[in-house]
Amino acid sequence: MSIEKRYHFVAISGSLRKASYNTLALKALQQVAPSHITIEQLHIGDIPFYNADLHTEQLPEQVVPLIEKIKAADGVIFVSPEYNYSIPGALKNAIDVFSRHPDKPFNEKAVAILGASQGNLGTARMQYHLRQVMVFLNAYVINKPEVMIASAQHKFDASGNLTDEYTLKLLPQLLHSLAQLSEKIK
Amino acid sequence: MSIEKRYHFVAISGSLRKASYNTLALKALQQVAPSHITIEQLHIGDIPFYNADLHTEQLPEQVVPLIEKIKAADGVIFVSPEYNYSIPGALKNAIDVFSRHPDKPFNEKAVAILGASQGNLGTARMQYHLRQVMVFLNAYVINKPEVMIASAQHKFDASGNLTDEYTLKLLPQLLHSLAQLSEKIK
Amino acid sequence: MSIEKRYHFVAISGSLRKASYNTLALKALQQVAPSHITIEQLHIGDIPFYNADLHTEQLPEQVVPLIEKIKAADGVIFVSPEYNYSIPGALKNAIDVFSRHPDKPFNEKAVAILGASQGNLGTARMQYHLRQVMVFLNAYVINKPEVMIASAQHKFDASGNLTDEYTLKLLPQLLHSLAQLSEKIK
Amino acid sequence: MSIEKRYHFVAISGSLRKASYNTLALKALQQVAPSHITIEQLHIGDIPFYNADLHTEQLPEQVVPLIEKIKAADGVIFVSPEYNYSIPGALKNAIDVFSRHPDKPFNEKAVAILGASQGNLGTARMQYHLRQVMVFLNAYVINKPEVMIASAQHKFDASGNLTDEYTLKLLPQLLHSLAQLSEKIK
Repeated sequence: MSIEKRYHFVAISGSLRKASYNTLALKALQQVAPSHITIEQLHIGDIPFYNADLHTEQLPEQVVPLIEKIKAADGVIFVSPEYNYSIPGALKNAIDVFSRHPDKPFNEKAVAILGASQGNLGTARMQYHLRQVMVFLNAYVINKPEVMIASAQHKFDASGNLTDEYTLKLLPQLLHSLAQLSEKIK
Repeated sequence: MSIEKRYHFVAISGSLRKASYNTLALKALQQVAPSHITIEQLHIGDIPFYNADLHTEQLPEQVVPLIEKIKAADGVIFVSPEYNYSIPGALKNAIDVFSRHPDKPFNEKAVAILGASQGNLGTARMQYHLRQVMVFLNAYVINKPEVMIASAQHKFDASGNLTDEYTLKLLPQLLHSLAQLSEKIK
Repeated sequence: MSIEKRYHFVAISGSLRKASYNTLALKALQQVAPSHITIEQLHIGDIPFYNADLHTEQLPEQVVPLIEKIKAADGVIFVSPEYNYSIPGALKNAIDVFSRHPDKPFNEKAVAILGASQGNLGTARMQYHLRQVMVFLNAYVINKPEVMIASAQHKFDASGNLTDEYTLKLLPQLLHSLAQLSEKIK
Repeated sequence: MSIEKRYHFVAISGSLRKASYNTLALKALQQVAPSHITIEQLHIGDIPFYNADLHTEQLPEQVVPLIEKIKAADGVIFVSPEYNYSIPGALKNAIDVFSRHPDKPFNEKAVAILGASQGNLGTARMQYHLRQVMVFLNAYVINKPEVMIASAQHKFDASGNLTDEYTLKLLPQLLHSLAQLSEKIK
């Protein structure tokens, strides 16, 4: 009798709006996750801008539990729109603040990146910038599958459920790939 | 008798801390500027995160005068640190918010990018990401000189004055190049 | 009575295969060009690898006429596939060799970049890498329109003619934009 | 009694000139390698340009043994200059040709990237472009240490030996990190 290894991932949406396609994609990930994988969303909307004058000694108190959760997780998932051909400021700021914690919460962490946009490229440009950020943080990002949900306005139904079959096939692959990488780099 | 054309640039520091090397570099730019060039610093520290639910109809009121100043300027200068191999979240968020204004304040604007860091690369990675952002905004970034102030902790004196001779030679070139590009793309 | 300004552009395909979608897109550009714009294709298939031991004193003789044509042109158009998420080696090598000419043929040149691929991104990743190359060469790349021909296998007919209506509308805009930028940065 | 695991890496220099700083850095890597690590240089100077018309059915015969060596290796090391802010054409072409082999020689391979340049950035821009290439090839690149040998003309002696102490400390760390990653992603 074998007991399947369980994985707990944290996921961050790079969009602050409620009906964001990216937050919906995050929820779709939670729904398709197999029973041995749990995904907890971390919210970044109330993290103040990083300011070395204020935060060198002490990080804002609301980020401490978020950092604890990142540290404890088997992997981190970023689900983000692309703003102006790069990472949204709010998401980048959250990473900037988290990164200042002396425990370096992203160090040797397995990471997956995906995103949804109304345009044709499905957040590709954001994703390659975020991959470069992960080099500094010494996180390892899964190479495949790359999930770039283009024309997002046609891929969710009126209730916010992801209906695109191709993407629905990719999401469990992404989770599997993240679990596998997490196992390897431990 | 000829009258020299005058230029007015706005400049944004990507760092919020008071004694930031980048804010000091911005002040150095103001000091070396020839008499026909003026540089006004715009402050971005109190701009809220972009949130489409709140800001699609109306941008935060504090950004409106900033956007007016960008629109009226002959060019925009970004002086920024590099955080985690990319653009600081606070600076990226300011650009994200400004970019949503229907007047598209960066459209066909001449732009210069520079930065200071304590490391060896002098914010190079931030600068190439920011250049990509400018493609979307249809701004034109000067190619030369590229000002990457490495080992910044050794290039300012105790009063915060830039003392590095090489950089002090580059800054007026950067202003000249920006004025020239501004003239061309008008 | 006004006489319309004439423009002569050179164009380089990043693919060496005969029926390349990119070479076909280059031909489509020639066909849609208005009468005051001419486009001459430059061939790069027989340029040797750049080797400083051989080429510091003298560039390979076959590149000299190509460099003369680049220098004389009002603008340069790169039409290229994306190989392995970046610029094809053959195209990058041609640029590497051209760039060593003391006359710096790309200096202050107006440039347009486009590409076709069978995938979803239409060579986006190649295009942003090539834009970064152009910063070093002090060339200015048009920001708009960005022409990324995705699913290229469905956008040309059996005779190799571009049939995609959206792209056929973009190509003259690209030429117009390049002519305009060429005029401005002169 | 434990027997130390042995590692065999292949290394490619992105420069074709004989006295290249990068080829010298590759030799320095071989010299500092501990006894359980061997490094074999692969030469790419006579690989023809990738051309789908010629190479879809059959790759150039001289690349077959190179591909076999890549496949058999525990890791791949790229030691390359930066040309025009990106990957040298000759190196990119070698990767383009290798990547077409049906065995996908870089798939799940551990990779290290380093480079030497006479400028200040030590090939940083080349390295981030090459990292993006590796995403497509499903290779995993070590995050640390990043070895960017700036001002290379001052870091080798007249006989071509690397003399820079800081770099000499980094090189064994790079080999150790590559061996470790190779072990993990197997």
